[in-house]
Amino acid sequence: MLAELKGLNEECGLFGVWGHEDAAQITYYGLHSLQHRGQEGAGIVLTDGGRLSGLKGEGLVTEVFTADKMQSLSGKAAIGHVRYATSGGGGYENVQPLLFNSQSGGMALAHNGNLVNAVQLKAQLEAQGSIFQTTSDTEVLAHLIKKGGFSDFKSRVKNALSMLKGAYAFLIMDENQMLVALDPHGLRPLSLGKLGDAYVVASETCALDIVGAEFIRDIQPGELLVIDDSGITAERFSLSTQRSMCTMEYIYFSRPDSNIDGINVHTARKNLGKQLALEAFIEADVVTGVPDSSISVAIGYAEATGIPYELGLIKNRYVGRTFIQPSQSLREQGVKMKLSAVRGVVEGKRVVMVDDSIVRGTTSKRIVSLLKEAGAKEVHVLISSPPIKNPCYYGIDTSTTEELIASDNSVEEIRKIIGADTLTFLSVERTVAGIGRPFEGELHGQCMACFTGKYPTEIFEETKLQLSQKC
Amino acid sequence: MLAELKGLNEECGLFGVWGHEDAAQITYYGLHSLQHRGQEGAGIVLTDGGRLSGLKGEGLVTEVFTADKMQSLSGKAAIGHVRYATSGGGGYENVQPLLFNSQSGGMALAHNGNLVNAVQLKAQLEAQGSIFQTTSDTEVLAHLIKKGGFSDFKSRVKNALSMLKGAYAFLIMDENQMLVALDPHGLRPLSLGKLGDAYVVASETCALDIVGAEFIRDIQPGELLVIDDSGITAERFSLSTQRSMCTMEYIYFSRPDSNIDGINVHTARKNLGKQLALEAFIEADVVTGVPDSSISVAIGYAEATGIPYELGLIKNRYVGRTFIQPSQSLREQGVKMKLSAVRGVVEGKRVVMVDDSIVRGTTSKRIVSLLKEAGAKEVHVLISSPPIKNPCYYGIDTSTTEELIASDNSVEEIRKIIGADTLTFLSVERTVAGIGRPFEGELHGQCMACFTGKYPTEIFEETKLQLSQKC
Amino acid sequence: MLAELKGLNEECGLFGVWGHEDAAQITYYGLHSLQHRGQEGAGIVLTDGGRLSGLKGEGLVTEVFTADKMQSLSGKAAIGHVRYATSGGGGYENVQPLLFNSQSGGMALAHNGNLVNAVQLKAQLEAQGSIFQTTSDTEVLAHLIKKGGFSDFKSRVKNALSMLKGAYAFLIMDENQMLVALDPHGLRPLSLGKLGDAYVVASETCALDIVGAEFIRDIQPGELLVIDDSGITAERFSLSTQRSMCTMEYIYFSRPDSNIDGINVHTARKNLGKQLALEAFIEADVVTGVPDSSISVAIGYAEATGIPYELGLIKNRYVGRTFIQPSQSLREQGVKMKLSAVRGVVEGKRVVMVDDSIVRGTTSKRIVSLLKEAGAKEVHVLISSPPIKNPCYYGIDTSTTEELIASDNSVEEIRKIIGADTLTFLSVERTVAGIGRPFEGELHGQCMACFTGKYPTEIFEETKLQLSQKC
Amino acid sequence: MLAELKGLNEECGLFGVWGHEDAAQITYYGLHSLQHRGQEGAGIVLTDGGRLSGLKGEGLVTEVFTADKMQSLSGKAAIGHVRYATSGGGGYENVQPLLFNSQSGGMALAHNGNLVNAVQLKAQLEAQGSIFQTTSDTEVLAHLIKKGGFSDFKSRVKNALSMLKGAYAFLIMDENQMLVALDPHGLRPLSLGKLGDAYVVASETCALDIVGAEFIRDIQPGELLVIDDSGITAERFSLSTQRSMCTMEYIYFSRPDSNIDGINVHTARKNLGKQLALEAFIEADVVTGVPDSSISVAIGYAEATGIPYELGLIKNRYVGRTFIQPSQSLREQGVKMKLSAVRGVVEGKRVVMVDDSIVRGTTSKRIVSLLKEAGAKEVHVLISSPPIKNPCYYGIDTSTTEELIASDNSVEEIRKIIGADTLTFLSVERTVAGIGRPFEGELHGQCMACFTGKYPTEIFEETKLQLSQKC
Repeated sequence: MLAELKGLNEECGLFGVWGHEDAAQITYYGLHSLQHRGQEGAGIVLTDGGRLSGLKGEGLVTEVFTADKMQSLSGKAAIGHVRYATSGGGGYENVQPLLFNSQSGGMALAHNGNLVNAVQLKAQLEAQGSIFQTTSDTEVLAHLIKKGGFSDFKSRVKNALSMLKGAYAFLIMDENQMLVALDPHGLRPLSLGKLGDAYVVASETCALDIVGAEFIRDIQPGELLVIDDSGITAERFSLSTQRSMCTMEYIYFSRPDSNIDGINVHTARKNLGKQLALEAFIEADVVTGVPDSSISVAIGYAEATGIPYELGLIKNRYVGRTFIQPSQSLREQGVKMKLSAVRGVVEGKRVVMVDDSIVRGTTSKRIVSLLKEAGAKEVHVLISSPPIKNPCYYGIDTSTTEELIASDNSVEEIRKIIGADTLTFLSVERTVAGIGRPFEGELHGQCMACFTGKYPTEIFEETKLQLSQKC
Repeated sequence: MLAELKGLNEECGLFGVWGHEDAAQITYYGLHSLQHRGQEGAGIVLTDGGRLSGLKGEGLVTEVFTADKMQSLSGKAAIGHVRYATSGGGGYENVQPLLFNSQSGGMALAHNGNLVNAVQLKAQLEAQGSIFQTTSDTEVLAHLIKKGGFSDFKSRVKNALSMLKGAYAFLIMDENQMLVALDPHGLRPLSLGKLGDAYVVASETCALDIVGAEFIRDIQPGELLVIDDSGITAERFSLSTQRSMCTMEYIYFSRPDSNIDGINVHTARKNLGKQLALEAFIEADVVTGVPDSSISVAIGYAEATGIPYELGLIKNRYVGRTFIQPSQSLREQGVKMKLSAVRGVVEGKRVVMVDDSIVRGTTSKRIVSLLKEAGAKEVHVLISSPPIKNPCYYGIDTSTTEELIASDNSVEEIRKIIGADTLTFLSVERTVAGIGRPFEGELHGQCMACFTGKYPTEIFEETKLQLSQKC
Repeated sequence: MLAELKGLNEECGLFGVWGHEDAAQITYYGLHSLQHRGQEGAGIVLTDGGRLSGLKGEGLVTEVFTADKMQSLSGKAAIGHVRYATSGGGGYENVQPLLFNSQSGGMALAHNGNLVNAVQLKAQLEAQGSIFQTTSDTEVLAHLIKKGGFSDFKSRVKNALSMLKGAYAFLIMDENQMLVALDPHGLRPLSLGKLGDAYVVASETCALDIVGAEFIRDIQPGELLVIDDSGITAERFSLSTQRSMCTMEYIYFSRPDSNIDGINVHTARKNLGKQLALEAFIEADVVTGVPDSSISVAIGYAEATGIPYELGLIKNRYVGRTFIQPSQSLREQGVKMKLSAVRGVVEGKRVVMVDDSIVRGTTSKRIVSLLKEAGAKEVHVLISSPPIKNPCYYGIDTSTTEELIASDNSVEEIRKIIGADTLTFLSVERTVAGIGRPFEGELHGQCMACFTGKYPTEIFEETKLQLSQKC
Repeated sequence: MLAELKGLNEECGLFGVWGHEDAAQITYYGLHSLQHRGQEGAGIVLTDGGRLSGLKGEGLVTEVFTADKMQSLSGKAAIGHVRYATSGGGGYENVQPLLFNSQSGGMALAHNGNLVNAVQLKAQLEAQGSIFQTTSDTEVLAHLIKKGGFSDFKSRVKNALSMLKGAYAFLIMDENQMLVALDPHGLRPLSLGKLGDAYVVASETCALDIVGAEFIRDIQPGELLVIDDSGITAERFSLSTQRSMCTMEYIYFSRPDSNIDGINVHTARKNLGKQLALEAFIEADVVTGVPDSSISVAIGYAEATGIPYELGLIKNRYVGRTFIQPSQSLREQGVKMKLSAVRGVVEGKRVVMVDDSIVRGTTSKRIVSLLKEAGAKEVHVLISSPPIKNPCYYGIDTSTTEELIASDNSVEEIRKIIGADTLTFLSVERTVAGIGRPFEGELHGQCMACFTGKYPTEIFEETKLQLSQKC
């Protein structure tokens, strides 16, 4: 919800299970715990060993999968997907997994990420007579697999993956196997677990926990797993790999109870808060965080500075898609949505307001204003990431460079725009230090392209021009 | 949601506005911010000066009031109501406000609380030929008003109120005025605000904030306000009043950003956490709170003890009424709902788990178990209230005495049942101290009957026998 | 659907069953076959011998009673109701049966008809302190029963019935019995049947047929049946009775497969067509009827005259409540709804168009115009009833006198307005002859007030002034 | 509805309009009048000259196109489709028009019919790497068009059509033109009309009438029309054409107000009734028809024999998809659905029951039984078509040969099975005579394969084995 305010939207979540008689239900609970990664649509495809079948729809997991509909789903294995809320380019067709049945058998695909050469690949395929039903990148892979010359499925998938550039975590299933692939830079998180004899794969470890699965390990960059009734095999489809985990997964997207590459997200955020204390020790009366992602950071800052942490901002829990937005005149009269400042906490106080990032600046401005209207004497804004100056081509909807306030404004200019008394961003170095990944190159195996402009992959002009369709 | 787990359910929320051209919209946003007080149904009745009309329905505010339906609502004044989720005794008829039109004019009523002599009054009225359409207490007042001998509306209302015993906050509206009444013990919160020239009344101050209204004052016990186009008048309909504010409003029900009798709820909870530190200083590694109501308490405890506060428990945000419950076998396999323990935070740690209350003990047991499964070495349970030993007859759904675990178990026995390493309740004295109301008799103007058994009003055998219908 | 065009709307349908383990399902099918009598709302109340419970809702029977909801309904006896589609005065509250539960037991009522002294009774009851939840006449009876001094239910019902004036068929149920009452003029049809050991009561015999029940007899004017587990008893609550069956039931409302007082509706209509042949023998090429009610008439006319009957008009079957009406400009471009003329049948022909009645004349005008646009050379309109000159106060929604085209226009003037080449109404005598009821006074036991102005009951000024709420 | 009973289901309806500012609305009304040809799903695709967009969904036209959704549709031209109700093989994906957008432009297709070489074409295309998203034949044409070597759209379409065998009427649209194609045997009806300056194409002429369009002519076998902003051009894509219009369109599928090749469907049916009188002159008291399609036939028979036509069978109008089917035990107790016999008409009578066809015989058996239970002394069944002995491969869902009762039972055996006193089918010759098409070869340009086994096209073993997906 706040994500929409922020203009920083996640790009889908994946869940798969192989070898469990309650595969559909397990996937339902798994997807439900990944709902924060996408609220536009959800789908599940199952195999019973003979045939692929599935159900998908627009809306939340609980909206798409009603009790009635769940009863019709059965199978021993399943892949599922939640898709993020986009204003354009949506629609039922684009909800995943994509399911293709043919006379020689079926194939289902679910994708998290964004390909940077999708435009080129699609043009080549269309020139060869391919017809695309969706506007998503994912269908490109389906066509590449289908057209691949090799006779066995795994070889065709490997060959197809070798043509892709960009960020991707893929779950691919036919009647008899589930393939799990992660791009050579490992830009997106993907973890493997075990639930009794069944294997489970999920975008975040919170989904393993929620279904009672035991964490085994994270999928490695350039890795391809094949899971079938005889067990699991792993191989590399790319020799040139370099982990570049998306830093925003720690800072903003993932659930605090998930671990990414062994690091707990809540703990990372709390440590970012402690790093912020090193960056700027503000004279203030209370620390408050913007719910939900910045609460851990605020607590870390409070712990490091001794300034008491308070609930200065409250999120309206029941704001859903059917919430009626106040008219302009009502908004001017002060009707609030989504977020309220707690007068009893901030009135007359010097307030430290901690947030995770600034994209367009409009949300920050609104929150500073809420706090001041509620009587805050001073509002000091601390951001637990560096300024976002560059668009993401790997699946995060940060739109274009022009919309990024930090792309052509100094910190002081941003401070003025949002109306804060002081504004502090975390440096790149302290961001790395706060997250605390072990050494794996200069940036400790993280992608920081949105802060630094150093993209781990090629970026094409076509990609920049055409805002391509994610997952 | 967690409320259902706990077996401690709130009893409705009220919102009213007089003299605003956007009365319907204002009430929509007000009710929305009170949604935590009741999710079963919602309704709004409006007057345009000539006729009462309204809309109500089962479900959340955003479900009942769609954009389409809001367009059909207009008027210069409105009263609204949200009703709590009960398993039995629900139904469209019981959704409030109740609206009665007659040849001589209309009347609408909205109620928060519970009458202790409703059974008797209803029997008398039925013996006199009255027909009840609902099973709620509220309709009793309507009949008493209707049957009242006086010619003017206010006198009939006052006469009717004088026959009621128990807890009630009422909004009563006819075509030309809105009446606001609070029982002589002031058991339920009710506040008055101003929005431009319009008057606003709400169960909690958070609703005043959300619509941009300025807080004026809390309604006093035994007070009757009359608001009409000529302004506002206040009088007492009872001379024998004694404030006995429901303590659970501070501890559990109200939103942290609300103030009750001038005391901010978040702040009160944080102070209860500090009192808990005096009650029991646990040797532990982390403090965690059960979301949402106990987070403030946990932070207070952490601040007072220096033990770091961590996000050890995560609430599943998207669990709604359509969420499919895991089957027993899936639950045994570990599928979780509503709440997850954060392994990365609690594994190998001595954990202080702070919660606000224990009703039946089943929720506490489940959470302790979640934490231990996630690797917690020790789980120390701290409760920010005394043991609940007595049922509430004033509108809280604590069911019967038999279901209250503390009614016939010692603290040590409860500790064993819930599987905690230690268990600490806050004493009555420290609860009073933590909330920090100014002196107003021994209990500082609070009702603590559920802890102490000292009810501020008469309690009749009939009330005990028949679990009457709240609001 | 066409009814709406015509401005002549039916006034509800009743169905009851006592002593069948599938009472809810039986009532569902019964109401479904009575759906033509009302599409606004539907409800069922059941007794299991101990408690009344029910379900009702706005919409069609199949919309209100979904498979899910039917599962929750059980009992050994049930009464059900379908309510007609009105633009104003609707709403969930007015959907029947009305169900009243009290500490001393419950009562449910379902009504077909209209009371002519409801305004007066309601005023008296309100003066005595009664509160009305609905705007329907039906609730008046509930209050009269409740207030009745007698100790047993039947005596209180009889006493209450004695105060009513107007048209009514009532089903009244408490936990242990079902009471069936018909007004002393027997204005509305009501029949008794048997289904195994169970008794069934329905507004039309088609509902007995559809559930497989055997017809026993029609309920007599002024009769009160009591059905309970020990069987059935019948008595008269009024000594002054005179059957005055609504003539429009034969002409327009009832299903062709129903029998009213032993006369099949389709057969009566066909005979009305034969009477029309005596009234006017038109030189024409084809006879066509306005679907659905006038098809039988047209066939009778064709049979009597030898002019071939053809399908000159087709009803659009799938026009439902969600059908989007064409805009004015589209209508002018010729977009049609509900009814189409069959060019292949009428082009170049002299057409006899048979309809059952003319209320406001707008529908007739539209149909004549449709036929002429489709190429009809001449259109001769035959109406199987006399001109409707007077409003109905017994439950038919013919609105006010002003709206009745025949109230101040001669037949020749109406002919000009509707654009027909000739226009013929059936005389009162031939209408009586066509229906063919046995002799029972001058009008053979029929009410013909809408044609003749001779009302079988008193009509009060209040009734005329205030268009009261039917059933 | 009855269609389902009968096991004889239609195969979709088409509607298109070019050059009208209300193209979406026009198409809505057109599809609505074709709803009898398919109730499973409906869709509309529009072009605004620059881009194709559309909306489709499962359900009735009025369910898919709500007022809200219609507002979002605009364009100067549209093609629409209604799809028939099938138990398997349905789903959102298969709802038409299919819409394909690519980097070089879009294409939309709507289809009525069935290809007999779809299996082979699909296998070839999949071998070449094509991926199919649907299970419908229609997508085959899309791939053939896409893969076609020619540069202009029309040439690619013509080339693709030349590869198809079977029955098809196609509407194909890109941003700038609408193409209309009919198979070389003209197995399906398709007509052209004009609405002001706009062109309209529809499966039946009733849709032209309903939108106020003037009929121009029927599309000819092997014809391809191109309609764009500069007007209309027609050409043949096949030189070897022979009209073989589906005879069941006259007998069963089409609306009585439609004309097919200049012959009105109601009139054809009435004449079939007159031919039945030549086939068998039954000594009987009443003639009745099975609604809706056999009523015209029954009237023709009555007219020819002088036996009076009566409404002996009534269809339940409000049976929809949500209707709850009676349990087996309730059905045994006599609960009826969909169809009722009118006791008042048939009791004690010798009844002629006219129906259009017998597929599996179960429906006929049920109706004979209904009539006998309602007291019919004798039931004589007259069928206005010859026995159906062979499956249809051109889009009618007559299932397999084994299910056709006439494939291995004599007329006398069928009579016994359905319990009729006599049973008469119309001969092939009299069927041809009744319909009355002008001479165009032995069968007057009709396909009678289901009666005679003489298929106008090749039929492949693959087609017989695999029940392919229609339209």
